[in-house]
Amino acid sequence: MNERFYGNLMHEGGEKKPPRPTLGEIGINQFAPYLINRIAARYNANMAEALKALDVTTTEMRVLAILSLSYSTTINELAVYTVTQQSTMSRTLDELEEQGLIQRIARPDDRRVRDVSITEKGRQAFEKIWPILYEQFRHLFDGVQEDEYRTFVNTLHRILRNIRKHDI
Amino acid sequence: MNERFYGNLMHEGGEKKPPRPTLGEIGINQFAPYLINRIAARYNANMAEALKALDVTTTEMRVLAILSLSYSTTINELAVYTVTQQSTMSRTLDELEEQGLIQRIARPDDRRVRDVSITEKGRQAFEKIWPILYEQFRHLFDGVQEDEYRTFVNTLHRILRNIRKHDI
Repeated sequence: MNERFYGNLMHEGGEKKPPRPTLGEIGINQFAPYLINRIAARYNANMAEALKALDVTTTEMRVLAILSLSYSTTINELAVYTVTQQSTMSRTLDELEEQGLIQRIARPDDRRVRDVSITEKGRQAFEKIWPILYEQFRHLFDGVQEDEYRTFVNTLHRILRNIRKHDI
Repeated sequence: MNERFYGNLMHEGGEKKPPRPTLGEIGINQFAPYLINRIAARYNANMAEALKALDVTTTEMRVLAILSLSYSTTINELAVYTVTQQSTMSRTLDELEEQGLIQRIARPDDRRVRDVSITEKGRQAFEKIWPILYEQFRHLFDGVQEDEYRTFVNTLHRILRNIRKHDI
């Protein structure tokens, strides 16, 4: 890594350095957002491919994963956690409800809000999905040791705090 | 962080541990692919919003960014680097060529392959885009120090090597 450009990147070092390095100076392979997008795209493509064997979409998998961890969730929260557009989310929930994997129940005190929860059948479906998810995860971090993983996740948390909205 | 679950996660520790922890045991907030997807989605949404001021799409920005760094690139390489579907890429290149920001030139020795390169007008357009890109980047890593950033990028490289295809 080129120390000098890296120094520029984070606005450190002497006062004679320019205020904003160019992308060429930073280098595309040191530009983390580029690497994150490359990884996310590849990981999601691999995942969609692997999930085909179970006839499950990535969004369905994400919904079942999140719901398997919580008693119930609102549709808004689900959309954020699963990084899915509201319209796609509605269709996915229709689909999952029809298959008996989730249920939506209107709140007694506010009928406009519907809480989504997983059914026993949904839990069983996720138990079949999880080994695929875990295998993709293991492949992603092949050769990464525990300490490195922990440090990596801490930085991810920092980044997510920096950019998330509405505190969820 | 729960050490025991973390140990399970990476298949370390005593032989009595189960071979595959559940997602609940790992914890969604320690599950890096989830965090990466959350970050990528938020970052890309913020970027699209910020680019509206210049009437530029995210894909156009990415194409100009990549081309600003290289003499010329094939359409296939561009699609990988910019994580864009081939069909979207074709439309984007049509658009950019019409605006005079890029050019496509068929190779003399193989007319089926067209090399894409940026024009001087395209470079000037990217110079206007870069401050926005850089500001988003700075926001993403607000509070992350040089050492932490370096370590983070190294892990990203490791992950990308684990999952990329065709060595690009």
